[in-house]
Amino acid sequence: LVDLILALDFGGTKHAAGVIASGEAVWRGWKRAITPDNGTAREDLEIMFSLARDLLVGDIPAAIGASFGGPVDADTGLVRTCYHVHGWDNLPLKNLLEQEFGAPAWVDNDANLAALGEHRFGAGRGVQSLFYITVSTGVGGGWILNNHLWRGANNMAGEIGHLCIDPDGPLCACGRHGCLERLASGCGIAEDARLLLTRSPQHGQILHQLVGSDLSAITAQLVSQAYNLGDRLSQQVLDKAAWALGKGIGSVANLINPELFILGGGVTNAGERYWQIIRQTARQEALPDVHFEIQPAFLGDTAPLWGAVVLAQDNLNELK
Amino acid sequence: LVDLILALDFGGTKHAAGVIASGEAVWRGWKRAITPDNGTAREDLEIMFSLARDLLVGDIPAAIGASFGGPVDADTGLVRTCYHVHGWDNLPLKNLLEQEFGAPAWVDNDANLAALGEHRFGAGRGVQSLFYITVSTGVGGGWILNNHLWRGANNMAGEIGHLCIDPDGPLCACGRHGCLERLASGCGIAEDARLLLTRSPQHGQILHQLVGSDLSAITAQLVSQAYNLGDRLSQQVLDKAAWALGKGIGSVANLINPELFILGGGVTNAGERYWQIIRQTARQEALPDVHFEIQPAFLGDTAPLWGAVVLAQDNLNELK
Repeated sequence: LVDLILALDFGGTKHAAGVIASGEAVWRGWKRAITPDNGTAREDLEIMFSLARDLLVGDIPAAIGASFGGPVDADTGLVRTCYHVHGWDNLPLKNLLEQEFGAPAWVDNDANLAALGEHRFGAGRGVQSLFYITVSTGVGGGWILNNHLWRGANNMAGEIGHLCIDPDGPLCACGRHGCLERLASGCGIAEDARLLLTRSPQHGQILHQLVGSDLSAITAQLVSQAYNLGDRLSQQVLDKAAWALGKGIGSVANLINPELFILGGGVTNAGERYWQIIRQTARQEALPDVHFEIQPAFLGDTAPLWGAVVLAQDNLNELK
Repeated sequence: LVDLILALDFGGTKHAAGVIASGEAVWRGWKRAITPDNGTAREDLEIMFSLARDLLVGDIPAAIGASFGGPVDADTGLVRTCYHVHGWDNLPLKNLLEQEFGAPAWVDNDANLAALGEHRFGAGRGVQSLFYITVSTGVGGGWILNNHLWRGANNMAGEIGHLCIDPDGPLCACGRHGCLERLASGCGIAEDARLLLTRSPQHGQILHQLVGSDLSAITAQLVSQAYNLGDRLSQQVLDKAAWALGKGIGSVANLINPELFILGGGVTNAGERYWQIIRQTARQEALPDVHFEIQPAFLGDTAPLWGAVVLAQDNLNELK
């Protein structure tokens, strides 16, 4: 009789669940659902329970791993808060999952679990230390040091998004100036493009054609598209974002000296020029003796789900 | 029969040696010597051998730990280079010590060993993660994570000195702009005071009186003295240095989330106002949920020697 592992990923725009046999690397099955607009924590849980029940078809899992897109206390399995959906504050996710499925559960945030997933199944296999950075709506990160997740003294490690890149830079949502997240995230890129297009429309004609007259429709993805079509304004914006990310990576390399940086998230699909600027800036920012590589994520947006498998698997092994 | 541990500290301005019984926390004896001007690696070694022979009086140590004030490959015990003294490049310090004293030796850099010393014998006792920062001629650091030294993938972790605090800031010796070391080190402080005193002498009258007409005689220590006597120019300079250090600490807290920061080195004796600015800026820079303390070092300039004891002791225990 095999042990089944149930992996769950509570995301900002979609939820995913998967079932895998302990020790295997191929899913028995997995499912996704788009999150409802203006949903609540209760609805999110209902959706996830339903996905999981469909996959389990009556089986009881041996262990559950869950990824959550927000701050989590990994020791207690308590969700601290969710920035997008109401009702998550201080919700005991670990306990709720254990009650629902009758199996031990472990919970962590998506950046930590993406790092764990990439380390065991993705771009970080065979490496002892890495920093996974997700560049998406926001910017976050997760650490693997000595082959283990490093969560920090109070589960807050990895917050590269609010590394100050330029104290005279634009205001970030956190109230500080020139944070990496403000300069390099999808939101920041869209905002910069909007500002520049209002100021000097003649440089952003390709972007303007893509987006039409409604500048609020600008997204990082459209900027990226225009960038690769040669739009000057979009190049200016994305070059700056890549520079900021490179500065951040170089600083982190000096501080912690990991073997590998893995970059994931939608924004990192911006193309060769974007990656070149990141690599070049990071190399210049780091001291000559500090060696590292920068690689794209391998698992895409399934990385947290794979990390949830590893979390459940490792904890199950420890229980035995 | 007790095991004796020989601890050595090859410093920039002085060398120190100590002998301690394994498992004890009180020196059997220790000695210091000022380094010669324009000395060589060979002379440094002769001085150290002589100090050690005086302390050992014919006994053979069970293990040797050595701190070196420059980049070291801790795995092989090879000194990479020394920025002050000729002849150290690629010197196999571990092997030289083993040949001289007939005992196994381990070598690491001074910032790592100061972190280790403070963790076991000083301000970091009982804490599982800390970052030790030395603010002296330069700025460097050493990591304790999960109760162990974290050296990085190629022994370069802890280089907070070249964290970029302000990309539009003054040129650092490393060729980059606005590095923490340029803004907060003893050298940087002295340079800023010299520049400002040339430009607006009316604000630095107390400093001017302390130093006389020879502005090249300005040191961070004199700036600190003038600062505590109310010199406006010195306050401006040291406030900026404290701000830069606080920014760096807050960023590191977000990235790695250690329990404790320990600050050592001569510059950190600048007084209450300097510490207040560091603590306040670090708190503002860190995210609200990121908790940490900032404490002064406890062991002063003996921290690397104590760390050398821990390094030798731990490796000796592993051999047994």
